[in-house]
Amino acid sequence: MPQPPRRRARTSTRDLERYAGLFAARTAEMRSSAMRDLMAITARPEVISLAGGLPDTSTFPPESFAAQMGRIARTSAAEALQYGPTEGFEETKDCIVQVMAAEGMLPDPDDIIVTTGGQQAIDLVCKTLVDPGDVVITEAPTYPGAVPTLCSYQADVIQIECDADGMRVEELEPLLDQLAREGRKPKFIYSVPSFQNPAGVTMSIERRIRLVELARQRELLVVEDNPYGLLRYDGEAPAPLYQLDGGDFVIYLGTFSKILSPGIRLGWLVAPPPVMEKVVLGKQAADLCTSSLTQFFVREYFAEGRWRRYVEELVEIYRRRRDAMLDALAEHFPAEATWTTPDGGLFIWATLPSYIDTTDLLAKALRADVAFVPGQGAYFDGRGASSMRLNFSGVGESEIVEGIQRIGDVIEEQVELYGALTGEQRLPPEAAERAERSRRREAEPDTDTNVLPFRKASEG
Amino acid sequence: MPQPPRRRARTSTRDLERYAGLFAARTAEMRSSAMRDLMAITARPEVISLAGGLPDTSTFPPESFAAQMGRIARTSAAEALQYGPTEGFEETKDCIVQVMAAEGMLPDPDDIIVTTGGQQAIDLVCKTLVDPGDVVITEAPTYPGAVPTLCSYQADVIQIECDADGMRVEELEPLLDQLAREGRKPKFIYSVPSFQNPAGVTMSIERRIRLVELARQRELLVVEDNPYGLLRYDGEAPAPLYQLDGGDFVIYLGTFSKILSPGIRLGWLVAPPPVMEKVVLGKQAADLCTSSLTQFFVREYFAEGRWRRYVEELVEIYRRRRDAMLDALAEHFPAEATWTTPDGGLFIWATLPSYIDTTDLLAKALRADVAFVPGQGAYFDGRGASSMRLNFSGVGESEIVEGIQRIGDVIEEQVELYGALTGEQRLPPEAAERAERSRRREAEPDTDTNVLPFRKASEG
Repeated sequence: MPQPPRRRARTSTRDLERYAGLFAARTAEMRSSAMRDLMAITARPEVISLAGGLPDTSTFPPESFAAQMGRIARTSAAEALQYGPTEGFEETKDCIVQVMAAEGMLPDPDDIIVTTGGQQAIDLVCKTLVDPGDVVITEAPTYPGAVPTLCSYQADVIQIECDADGMRVEELEPLLDQLAREGRKPKFIYSVPSFQNPAGVTMSIERRIRLVELARQRELLVVEDNPYGLLRYDGEAPAPLYQLDGGDFVIYLGTFSKILSPGIRLGWLVAPPPVMEKVVLGKQAADLCTSSLTQFFVREYFAEGRWRRYVEELVEIYRRRRDAMLDALAEHFPAEATWTTPDGGLFIWATLPSYIDTTDLLAKALRADVAFVPGQGAYFDGRGASSMRLNFSGVGESEIVEGIQRIGDVIEEQVELYGALTGEQRLPPEAAERAERSRRREAEPDTDTNVLPFRKASEG
Repeated sequence: MPQPPRRRARTSTRDLERYAGLFAARTAEMRSSAMRDLMAITARPEVISLAGGLPDTSTFPPESFAAQMGRIARTSAAEALQYGPTEGFEETKDCIVQVMAAEGMLPDPDDIIVTTGGQQAIDLVCKTLVDPGDVVITEAPTYPGAVPTLCSYQADVIQIECDADGMRVEELEPLLDQLAREGRKPKFIYSVPSFQNPAGVTMSIERRIRLVELARQRELLVVEDNPYGLLRYDGEAPAPLYQLDGGDFVIYLGTFSKILSPGIRLGWLVAPPPVMEKVVLGKQAADLCTSSLTQFFVREYFAEGRWRRYVEELVEIYRRRRDAMLDALAEHFPAEATWTTPDGGLFIWATLPSYIDTTDLLAKALRADVAFVPGQGAYFDGRGASSMRLNFSGVGESEIVEGIQRIGDVIEEQVELYGALTGEQRLPPEAAERAERSRRREAEPDTDTNVLPFRKASEG
């Protein structure tokens, strides 16, 4: 009676219709993350990818990997292969406390849950707090990986512009007042305050203090996503929001992805007990528990006592790569382009003349074997079309220079094509900036001109 | 200006109220999985836990673990530590195809996504298909880990009783008719057809064929969750639903948890392309991608070419443990108790006289250093209160016998207490069965008497 195994015929249009009626409403709002789409293409070895948020895992010593795993095999293979507690192992939390202490924070281990990467931490926050239509406030631009998550929970996202000092917190209070008049209150404010993804900017200490004050006064939750805080190349670190607040209104998200490995999928979330209780239930339903094996890997790695030194090595490598990218941008991008100068992290945000659409540009760039993330992926409303996120951590300096040159070449073609089609001369920089400001004012009537894209005065 | 780090004071009632207003509606329906709650308690070494669904990972050779990891360190440490594709690596899919082929299935690798354990596969199905209030049909009892997930998506779950031949598919058609009259259609039918968790029963081939026919006639999705299919101790395997259907209406969920390791958190989902497209978006938003490191671990394990032999070893071990548990039940459980006799998998489902509440009994059992999963965790409506799930894979035979004896002792105390309180004699078995049938008829007026709990005729 059982039929022989067979492969299914490929799906026809009729099949699509057959299933469409079964999909949940959220699927209509679900969208792909801008950088995930590129992964298949950028896996081609000839492509220089400045698209991913990839740390350079080739810097991790294979002999350390082998030694850690050898110790697990000898002492705890059965435990590493078994289910673990939903909240994560205490030993993992000890490592997390060390990482947070390195930035001046002292969380209670009971307030920590180990998650399947930082991405799951964002998902669990939404699962705990967001009903369809609820307001969430993010930066503009915001982390492109948070966009699909917020969409999947059908959040109504309002984005607050960034400038060189991060989210313009002074715009938050009038926004909250306006929302209050409409009888609405945001479920949380999502921020990457240090070396923001994608803008590369860092929130000033004054704004951090003000943000935490506002959260306290209005009993609002702030979600501080801090994957890059320890990757600082210049200057002094302002205090994390979590430290300023003490953990009452700030939910903190961290990850081992950028200081050790994203392939182990280990992040964490710190929240006060009433919130944590719901987060744990959400985690159980989502994937029961985080990998015991990769948690044991982290435990063995921290036991070696050299994790700070490895981060220092990464800082040296990534600082050189950032500088190489900044130099290459100055040399190969047109005068009309602007970009940020990050003090740390993995990303530079560049903005081109408004007549260039970076999604179109990406298609041309891929033909030239180079990739970046188009800016629209960092917005919920189609803005960002002339911007791009450039990663400088994933490839070496010479590839960065070559990649920026290739992007510069395709931009140059676009600029010339625009000139030929419109009969206009290529815009002088001041005119391009005026055009850009004008375009932005149309989109965002309340903001003044000191928003991204911009150059710091020191960049000349 | 930054304040010194400080730990938060513990949360007061006022704090709870402060956050309560922010929680999403789904949190009101979220509940803890029956077995996750027990993990902390059962981690105490003196406790014999028959509660978890734990495979015995101590059977996995540490030298194989070390060799696999050594090869990864030498050949691909950087890739194992890096992000991977959302769908999973092709090499992982090759391993999955081997596992499914061992049960007669031949999926297209493009229809497979690698998930963070089988639990995430259930979550992604719900995310793709379930809006609040949507009908989902499950078996009664159903997998206790699916209960929190379905609750978190606010599904309206209808459970169809099982008997010795699995889900009573003959009750499905009238139920679908009734739903159709109400203008409702289930989003999917969730089944663990082989060695069901928690009941241990296996759906007959006749019912499998009828279920797949019904799905096709009515364009309904069936979600086949098959974690244990290869762990068969007696008899011949009926064809998987996926094989009978060919993958048009059956979404298939699998996992490496029970044939290799749950600590690596690797499962999978097989779905037709229109569904898979949405599942991939859901996965991106949830955790970007599954651990590269643990996928490489599986790749190296399968490259050793001995995975079938390891499963055969597990089958030998678990068969002996099942037999030890069945013998111990016959010896130590009261005559009023009934239980299932599984041909495979990890679980036996036992049912006690209806005046015994297994949740209360668990508290007493824990004082006697033994644990099981109370039956209510497998239902959405409070049924199952006199049943329990017993796992026989996680501990050795002598511990199984000792554990069942301890549970038998606390049951005996309850039976005697009941007799003393009511003045009734201990019920003879036939009377207890009548009482149980009567109780069940009240809960489920349409079902006849041939439902769980039951003993097969061969059990005497």
